[in-house]
Amino acid sequence: MQIFPTLFPVVAALLADPEGRILVQQRPPGTAMAGLWEFPGGKIEQGETPELALARELAEELGIHVLPADLQPFTFASEALGLRHLLLLLYHCNAWQGEPTALHATAIRWATIEELYLLAMPPADLPLLDAIAQSRRYRADSQ
Amino acid sequence: MQIFPTLFPVVAALLADPEGRILVQQRPPGTAMAGLWEFPGGKIEQGETPELALARELAEELGIHVLPADLQPFTFASEALGLRHLLLLLYHCNAWQGEPTALHATAIRWATIEELYLLAMPPADLPLLDAIAQSRRYRADSQ
Repeated sequence: MQIFPTLFPVVAALLADPEGRILVQQRPPGTAMAGLWEFPGGKIEQGETPELALARELAEELGIHVLPADLQPFTFASEALGLRHLLLLLYHCNAWQGEPTALHATAIRWATIEELYLLAMPPADLPLLDAIAQSRRYRADSQ
Repeated sequence: MQIFPTLFPVVAALLADPEGRILVQQRPPGTAMAGLWEFPGGKIEQGETPELALARELAEELGIHVLPADLQPFTFASEALGLRHLLLLLYHCNAWQGEPTALHATAIRWATIEELYLLAMPPADLPLLDAIAQSRRYRADSQ
């Protein structure tokens, strides 16, 4: 059977605290992959640029205000997702206003790279961890 | 006027020689941006995954054979392109078979990072150079 996948682009952000720990949020009960930890973000709606979509998602999920210009492309993941093909575009979030709050998620936490490798995360996020670990920006030890 | 951009995803590859120099090709006369140097790649056709599209483009443009599994996501660029919004997905090409040959391009060359900064390249490629320069993989001096 030949598969003709539709590209399914989603966006996600890396927010780091002053120690270089990265914000992750826990998916709430009743959603797909409930209980897993993920980077904040979501789908690109019709007519949105990726950066506008991500700024909107960060406002909805965390209650923070982000300028699209403060979202900087970092890396991406590309993998089959049923009949679709997921493109996960991961951005550095260079600045934001407000205090991140779990508006949708069960919880949020700031995690070092080492902790991220230990958390249960959606499969699409896993290939991103190596790129994060190699970035000087997030090279924080748990010490 | 409100713009409702359509996402326009394209794929490109970094092929490196043993010295870490990167292959670029020169756009032929009669094409958009003729004379500029670019990373090999192109559009994703309907029904292709990004990796299949890139393997096809590398075969068409350079006459080399690449397995989709040897294409590893590296970084991306995201920018307005008229009424569309360009997503340029840049991959490391970890292995290939055959000798790259300029089948479509006016010429190909292997360039160090320093040389890439000096070449005339399409605007969408420019934000990618900093990410390449920061990658240990391509940190080759001209010396």
